[in-house]
Amino acid sequence: MSDSGPPSLGILAGGGNLPGRVAAAAQAAGRRVFLVGLEGFAEATVLAPFPHATARIGAAGRILSLLRDNACHDLVLVGPVRRPSLLDLRPDAEGARLLARVGRAAFAGDDGLLAAVVRVLGDEGFSVIGAHEVLTEAVGPKGLLTRTGPDAAALADIARGMAVARALGSVDVGQCCVVQQGIVLAVEAIEGTDAMLTRAATLRRPGPGGVLVKLVKPGQERRADLPTIGIGTVRAAAEAGLRGVAFEAGGTLLAERAAMVATADSAGLFLLGVDPYEGEV
Amino acid sequence: MSDSGPPSLGILAGGGNLPGRVAAAAQAAGRRVFLVGLEGFAEATVLAPFPHATARIGAAGRILSLLRDNACHDLVLVGPVRRPSLLDLRPDAEGARLLARVGRAAFAGDDGLLAAVVRVLGDEGFSVIGAHEVLTEAVGPKGLLTRTGPDAAALADIARGMAVARALGSVDVGQCCVVQQGIVLAVEAIEGTDAMLTRAATLRRPGPGGVLVKLVKPGQERRADLPTIGIGTVRAAAEAGLRGVAFEAGGTLLAERAAMVATADSAGLFLLGVDPYEGEV
Repeated sequence: MSDSGPPSLGILAGGGNLPGRVAAAAQAAGRRVFLVGLEGFAEATVLAPFPHATARIGAAGRILSLLRDNACHDLVLVGPVRRPSLLDLRPDAEGARLLARVGRAAFAGDDGLLAAVVRVLGDEGFSVIGAHEVLTEAVGPKGLLTRTGPDAAALADIARGMAVARALGSVDVGQCCVVQQGIVLAVEAIEGTDAMLTRAATLRRPGPGGVLVKLVKPGQERRADLPTIGIGTVRAAAEAGLRGVAFEAGGTLLAERAAMVATADSAGLFLLGVDPYEGEV
Repeated sequence: MSDSGPPSLGILAGGGNLPGRVAAAAQAAGRRVFLVGLEGFAEATVLAPFPHATARIGAAGRILSLLRDNACHDLVLVGPVRRPSLLDLRPDAEGARLLARVGRAAFAGDDGLLAAVVRVLGDEGFSVIGAHEVLTEAVGPKGLLTRTGPDAAALADIARGMAVARALGSVDVGQCCVVQQGIVLAVEAIEGTDAMLTRAATLRRPGPGGVLVKLVKPGQERRADLPTIGIGTVRAAAEAGLRGVAFEAGGTLLAERAAMVATADSAGLFLLGVDPYEGEV
């Protein structure tokens, strides 16, 4: 142990600014933090203000040592990470041992992998908590955040998009899709939301614009990979000619909420928190 | 009636060469044919060898008149057609009447639309038969068509792809997906198979290549929109670094089978007819 204070919060940091926001929120609550930035994903400017180190995603031995040396017991996994191929992974000795325990789950969908990683970290004595448990104010609420709301056609598109996103999530593929006039323009797999929105822009039809629907996968390990929406998402949605974004209330992180709502308002888009299971028997 | 002979086979022709192949097969069986090429989709060189006319997809009145004037009772709908937006449709008077009867089905997924079109054509006194009933030799059989076959990793990717394609089909979205090393690289929505393969090429990971899996949607109206695979599909799959294509046996049209198998063999790809419901309770 490098210090005799209370246990720190360990943050395994992927891309974007959410790792920094989790760190800042924990510090504001009087907690010390230590970030391990995953190389190729974590941004140096996000890590810089906090005690941190970096590691390859395959270097599990180094990652666990860093966390233990810095007295981290609770861990948050936050920020997008693209799953490496087996060839890119190059596990260290500890990584190979843990990978064997993750086993086939690593190749059975993203969510299977993350759930297995959370389980293995638990076996190693860490307690994985969700980013949304630290960043409570960043969790998207139910209802409308913007001045503009969806009309009847947009609501119908949202309903169809929720059915599609749930079917997709049930086989652990993507979290989102774009629907316009009842037609599913694009469905997310590994390319990510922004690339899917760029594609949807090229598939857009004349007439009223479509909607982006982004849900938590059914059974998703919420401690590892909550859907996230940020300013970039709103901008890409506007450029794709969409009329709004529907996200799962209570299950989506809004990366920079005030700025995001302002961006949506100035573009005339709606942001709506929905409950995809409402009304189900 | 322009003629007093036996009823002709009417062919509502979308894109590609399959409409011509259906026409040629019917003629070879001693039947007269009349093609209505859908403008923007049907290719002039495919229509040219046969008695034909062209019509906008929204001009239902003209289409039905053409078919009746040419003594067509049985109809085949064949060749890809991209569903028009409401604004592009510009229905004629008869089209508006029929559209009202198709009703909400037109906005509830591609298959809902096609099933409704088949039903309305039946109400109008036509009998819609499947292209595969005329082109029996073009229906893909179960088993391996190529010299190369899938290894264990490719078989695992095929199994995952079938689960994903079925989930997708259950909400009437796409028919196919690309899986590599257990990871779903791309899922088809309205962009079509070729565009999805182009995308999958950019998302490819190091190591063994993936597979394309293409299935009939559960509950799909097989008389209107059977999945089709052709030389272009095989070339695009090879360019995307895939190792093979799995298609639903008994439910997929192989557009130019001999040339397609030769293309696959020279590229080292497998073509495998699968039964996605085999082994189910």
